[in-house]
Amino acid sequence: MVQGHTVKAFTSELNALTHDVLRMGGLAEAMISDMATAFAEGDLELAQRVIGADREVDELEARIEREIMRLLALRQPVAQDLRSIIAALKVSNDLERIGDLSKNVCKRLIEMGDDLTSVGKGSVERMSRAVRLQLKSVLDAYSTENPQEAIDVWLNDEEIDEHYNSMFREVLTYMMEDPRMISMGAHLLFIAKNLERIGDHCTNIAEVVHFYVTGDELPLTRPKVSEMGRTKEA
Amino acid sequence: MVQGHTVKAFTSELNALTHDVLRMGGLAEAMISDMATAFAEGDLELAQRVIGADREVDELEARIEREIMRLLALRQPVAQDLRSIIAALKVSNDLERIGDLSKNVCKRLIEMGDDLTSVGKGSVERMSRAVRLQLKSVLDAYSTENPQEAIDVWLNDEEIDEHYNSMFREVLTYMMEDPRMISMGAHLLFIAKNLERIGDHCTNIAEVVHFYVTGDELPLTRPKVSEMGRTKEA
Repeated sequence: MVQGHTVKAFTSELNALTHDVLRMGGLAEAMISDMATAFAEGDLELAQRVIGADREVDELEARIEREIMRLLALRQPVAQDLRSIIAALKVSNDLERIGDLSKNVCKRLIEMGDDLTSVGKGSVERMSRAVRLQLKSVLDAYSTENPQEAIDVWLNDEEIDEHYNSMFREVLTYMMEDPRMISMGAHLLFIAKNLERIGDHCTNIAEVVHFYVTGDELPLTRPKVSEMGRTKEA
Repeated sequence: MVQGHTVKAFTSELNALTHDVLRMGGLAEAMISDMATAFAEGDLELAQRVIGADREVDELEARIEREIMRLLALRQPVAQDLRSIIAALKVSNDLERIGDLSKNVCKRLIEMGDDLTSVGKGSVERMSRAVRLQLKSVLDAYSTENPQEAIDVWLNDEEIDEHYNSMFREVLTYMMEDPRMISMGAHLLFIAKNLERIGDHCTNIAEVVHFYVTGDELPLTRPKVSEMGRTKEA
């Protein structure tokens, strides 16, 4: 923190807020991990539990938001304190979306049910691991107020994009070879997209952390390679 | 506003903030409309202009956010004023996402290029019109502080979901009938999904408006029918 707090209670309130955001992050991380296991093992009961866990994430977000409104009204924070509170609001919003995306993958697993084959299994596993690591790193960056770690996460998103593009092409090939794969392939394309979007939310969090710690914004765009191999802006 | 303002300047600052959010909404609405035209007429130059317009939306969001930080620090608002400022932050965040999704559809149009056929044209047109109306209504609700209009938008999202599910099945059928349609079909599935997500962001805005005006939250979940016809939670 840049300036000392005259109100000790406020410091502990801010710490509690960060703590709640990190707890939400831990839940989102567990959801990604369980989602990957549910996919790898075709464990639809686990998929159902991930869907249930999302409500906990939503409720935690609602609680964090109420606390933020209370702190803004009661403590009327300025400078770094204000930035940290707005950061908590934004990070919790991205974490809620990450939970939602993991839930959506699990809903697709349940819809696919018996159609779930081994196609794409390796890719989903690799991508899930990569996005979970991104989330873990960006939560570390948030917790330790480390802007360099935030920049690393931001740059690493390119790897997630590469995973996504390669999975997109792989699934498309299967669909072209066997029309019976088309319905399942469509689900797999959306699962890949959801994982890629989890990566994007980690990047958002990295930008928020960087701004909150340094006061400097990361540039708006980052070069990105599209599904079809052409360069576009992120 | 619930209570009178002692600081006249603050009232005009709040009005200017709402005005900026509405301007951002107007830009997002124009992006949806142009995106639909670009798709219907295969106008890739227009698609390119939509991609360019997204930067304006992003910059407006950044400006709104800076103004919000300044107002929070300087005016230290409470009660309804605080709620209106946080509402502006959240609404502008959803509008930024809507701009981004319209941009992404246009990027797909450009990638599809000469492959762009008439398949799905009617569905994309209907869906684009429906989500643009949702956005228009929810911006009206925000501008006139009308909670009932917000509830209507929230309930109408079901129609968007139905559009999406019917387009999903339509595109899948084409893909099954003709393997040469698979790559384009995959793009169309994502375009449909992006339009459905624009609808979801309108629903988010409706929830924010409802809370900001009434202080009451809408329930967390709404029944939703899945692509495969089964009922699930939104």
